[in-house]
Amino acid sequence: MSTTAKVWMDGLWMDSHGCETFSAFDPSSGTAIGDRFPVSDWIDCERALAAADAVFQIMCDVPRDRISRFLESYAAAIEHDSVGLAELAHQETGLPITPRLKDVELPRTVSQLRQAAAACREGSWALPTIDSKAGIRSVHAAIGPVLVIGPNNFPFAFNGISGGDFAAAIAAGNPVIAKGHPSHPGTTLRLAGLASKCLSESGLPSALVQLIYRMPGDIGLQMIGDHRLASVGFTGSKSAGLKIKQVCDQHGKPAYLEMSSINPVLILPAALNQRAAELAQEFSGSCLMGAGQFCTNPGLIILVGEANSLEFLSAVKEKFIAAPTGTLLSRQVLDSVLEGIAKVHAAGAELLTGGRAATDNGRMAIENSLLHVSGQKFLENPTAFQTEMFGPVSLIVTAKDVEQARAILQRLEGNLTGCIYSSADGSDEAAYARLAPVLRQRVGRLLNDKMPTGVAVSAAMNHGGPFPATGHPGFTAVGIPASLRRFSALHCYDNVRPERLPLILQDANPSQAWRLVDGQWTQ
Amino acid sequence: MSTTAKVWMDGLWMDSHGCETFSAFDPSSGTAIGDRFPVSDWIDCERALAAADAVFQIMCDVPRDRISRFLESYAAAIEHDSVGLAELAHQETGLPITPRLKDVELPRTVSQLRQAAAACREGSWALPTIDSKAGIRSVHAAIGPVLVIGPNNFPFAFNGISGGDFAAAIAAGNPVIAKGHPSHPGTTLRLAGLASKCLSESGLPSALVQLIYRMPGDIGLQMIGDHRLASVGFTGSKSAGLKIKQVCDQHGKPAYLEMSSINPVLILPAALNQRAAELAQEFSGSCLMGAGQFCTNPGLIILVGEANSLEFLSAVKEKFIAAPTGTLLSRQVLDSVLEGIAKVHAAGAELLTGGRAATDNGRMAIENSLLHVSGQKFLENPTAFQTEMFGPVSLIVTAKDVEQARAILQRLEGNLTGCIYSSADGSDEAAYARLAPVLRQRVGRLLNDKMPTGVAVSAAMNHGGPFPATGHPGFTAVGIPASLRRFSALHCYDNVRPERLPLILQDANPSQAWRLVDGQWTQ
Repeated sequence: MSTTAKVWMDGLWMDSHGCETFSAFDPSSGTAIGDRFPVSDWIDCERALAAADAVFQIMCDVPRDRISRFLESYAAAIEHDSVGLAELAHQETGLPITPRLKDVELPRTVSQLRQAAAACREGSWALPTIDSKAGIRSVHAAIGPVLVIGPNNFPFAFNGISGGDFAAAIAAGNPVIAKGHPSHPGTTLRLAGLASKCLSESGLPSALVQLIYRMPGDIGLQMIGDHRLASVGFTGSKSAGLKIKQVCDQHGKPAYLEMSSINPVLILPAALNQRAAELAQEFSGSCLMGAGQFCTNPGLIILVGEANSLEFLSAVKEKFIAAPTGTLLSRQVLDSVLEGIAKVHAAGAELLTGGRAATDNGRMAIENSLLHVSGQKFLENPTAFQTEMFGPVSLIVTAKDVEQARAILQRLEGNLTGCIYSSADGSDEAAYARLAPVLRQRVGRLLNDKMPTGVAVSAAMNHGGPFPATGHPGFTAVGIPASLRRFSALHCYDNVRPERLPLILQDANPSQAWRLVDGQWTQ
Repeated sequence: MSTTAKVWMDGLWMDSHGCETFSAFDPSSGTAIGDRFPVSDWIDCERALAAADAVFQIMCDVPRDRISRFLESYAAAIEHDSVGLAELAHQETGLPITPRLKDVELPRTVSQLRQAAAACREGSWALPTIDSKAGIRSVHAAIGPVLVIGPNNFPFAFNGISGGDFAAAIAAGNPVIAKGHPSHPGTTLRLAGLASKCLSESGLPSALVQLIYRMPGDIGLQMIGDHRLASVGFTGSKSAGLKIKQVCDQHGKPAYLEMSSINPVLILPAALNQRAAELAQEFSGSCLMGAGQFCTNPGLIILVGEANSLEFLSAVKEKFIAAPTGTLLSRQVLDSVLEGIAKVHAAGAELLTGGRAATDNGRMAIENSLLHVSGQKFLENPTAFQTEMFGPVSLIVTAKDVEQARAILQRLEGNLTGCIYSSADGSDEAAYARLAPVLRQRVGRLLNDKMPTGVAVSAAMNHGGPFPATGHPGFTAVGIPASLRRFSALHCYDNVRPERLPLILQDANPSQAWRLVDGQWTQ
């Protein structure tokens, strides 16, 4: 008999009040996995909100170092459990243990938690600013309870209980209510078990972190609208993201949403002429990696000029056919990518290869799929041709010249990334100068001669971009310290007595945080 | 015969396409002032949007120094015309020339423009960040055309064509479409004339700044929803601000709105006991200054504990009666403050003094007005008692003890400021510790022993706060460099060739901007 997992609330592992349950699903066999997980109802959510609110009221008295030590011990616990975690996540997501889950994603997750811990302890993230003459000081400070909603495609690095948003929200001093993704609840539970153990040893309030696996959509939106919740970190679909945004907007609370992106890649004429085969190889590898299930998957390739485009197209097609079909994360992903392809196809794109489900023995998969459309046709219906096809799928647009490519760029919606491949010998410079500024305005990260799939955890990273890629073009979801500032409010102190100031704004600066003191950054 | 002023669009002074006109109004006599000003229609707005969009497409090629020189020459032109500007603004607003318009507000405006020029030239505002190992660099950059909508109460320092939002948006590299407030169109026109002359000498695109005096509400919202407009800076009423916010939210564009604030002031028991008369003096001066028409006017006083509250109340009442009634900015302000008072009175507050219009010879004025309510009564209807009464009006709440004051604070909406007055001898410390954290979460700027009316232009200032004081708690409308970051998007460059990077991210750092290079702030 299967058992039903407990939710983690108000410092306790308890039975959910909700009556419904669901189970995890192995996408490589199409079968349910034994244990049951609860679908939380409003009573659960209400309990979590009350506990998070109570914790927030005392967080200003909690030493930052205690938060850092919790994040560090949690990171160590994840590292210690890496084999078991990777096996379980593999079972629930179909993502490979090696080289993905154990060798790349788990170390990245651990590193993010450690970087967040260091940023929390040191404090520079908060841009402490002192005007000693005017007696005015300000700093970014915790905003309040944050609901972190993780996506399906990164069971560790973006998980609501362990990922980048989690690390950022906690390190900024906020209570977190984590909502794992229903496609990997066991992994989420296992991570939460580690978090719970580390939290109980940390001396921090026991409801600083809470866990819900799933709730009905309307209950989720009710929770998001509740006055006790200050902000939301979300990674997922555009349709869900827009619903969350609407509720947050109505209540005047900032939401940080990573919603959709097709990540245009431009290949300029001379580059295409000089290295079509090499570019086909590079693009195919990036597009098919992880069965294409990355936010920064290159989903739209724009070939500038028609010379050599046939060579590129046929080389890519060959590789797409030859490459094995990766396992998709879930049936929902399969259904959604098929729907996307059908929409782009119906708009008039030619299907060069793929386009059908490739399920075998219950395994969730789709043929590696390539579509093609002319620049002129793209311009007739730019919205339809920007439909996200989340999976090992890309649309190639052949623009007849630089000006047509520019017209296409001008019709692009906001994206996380945009890439431009150009010749090393300078012969693409005029085209670059004409196109790059237009692309620049529509993306968060502009790349040269590099595919967008990798998202380094760097202070200079922007994993963000204009709407509808995200909800605000000024913030990044990846990269420390900037990602912490999302979950903050700006707190100014005017003529406040020195001993009443938060430590980071007092004259002594024991953590040696970088502070902007009378116009100079100093430690 | 009166003439109709021209709008400034696409580099030209031209007749508005709109048919309607309006005139300025002298609130000290209640009479219209001669000239007519056009109400722009959609044709005007469309023209302005097209021109701003065209300018934005070339702004990345414009040297920053040229923008700085424009802002500086404009500042000098305003300074040079200070007598004429102050006289005209006085006529249109009723605000005194001395000590307000000429001696305080105009120099502040000039200083803001100069500080913005310096920030633009130097570049640190954009938080340039370099990860030399990963080859990733990022910087905040211009977001696109910004509509700046100025309020009624600062004809210079917050004017759409010369104020803080204008300076910030231009210094961040954005085209600005300025909308002056219809209650001082002549002042706005005179400022725009100076801006126009300086702009034409600057070598900048001639449509970098454009001017509209007024448009119907629906046309304004259509403009805000247009894809060519990137952001809005607004200072004004909550009702107008919420409409703007809704349109911006729908289109996923960031809006920076300063909407309403009643600026709670707490007076703790020992302070009230020790210096009731002095505090009554300080509060009355702050509340009645400029006829109370400040965003940071202290509109809600919470006396903690009942001892000495009567002494304070009667001292304040006496001062309110004795002080002259200031001239209000317009009939709209008079109507709105009377409506606010009626609402708070109807909810059960006692009117201690004032409450009626004090128009004489057509002058717009209201009696200095004081209302009172018990803490218990406040808690029965906290929403009604937080109605903004924009003018020389305040509501005093007598809380019976610290816990009741805390309960009141917990029901407060977001505000720009919150003040706590406490004894210098330490006897209020326990009350401070109990109350300050609750107030802290609800305000942008926390003050000690100081009224909120002054808003220093300081790098450490936060003229912002939680909703509904503004639309986002992480940003300030006053203070350079932070106010510039509102009108920016985060631009990341990954593996981009060195010569293609924006100057501020290239290895050489000629402007000596502060940059975060591999974790260290350096020039």
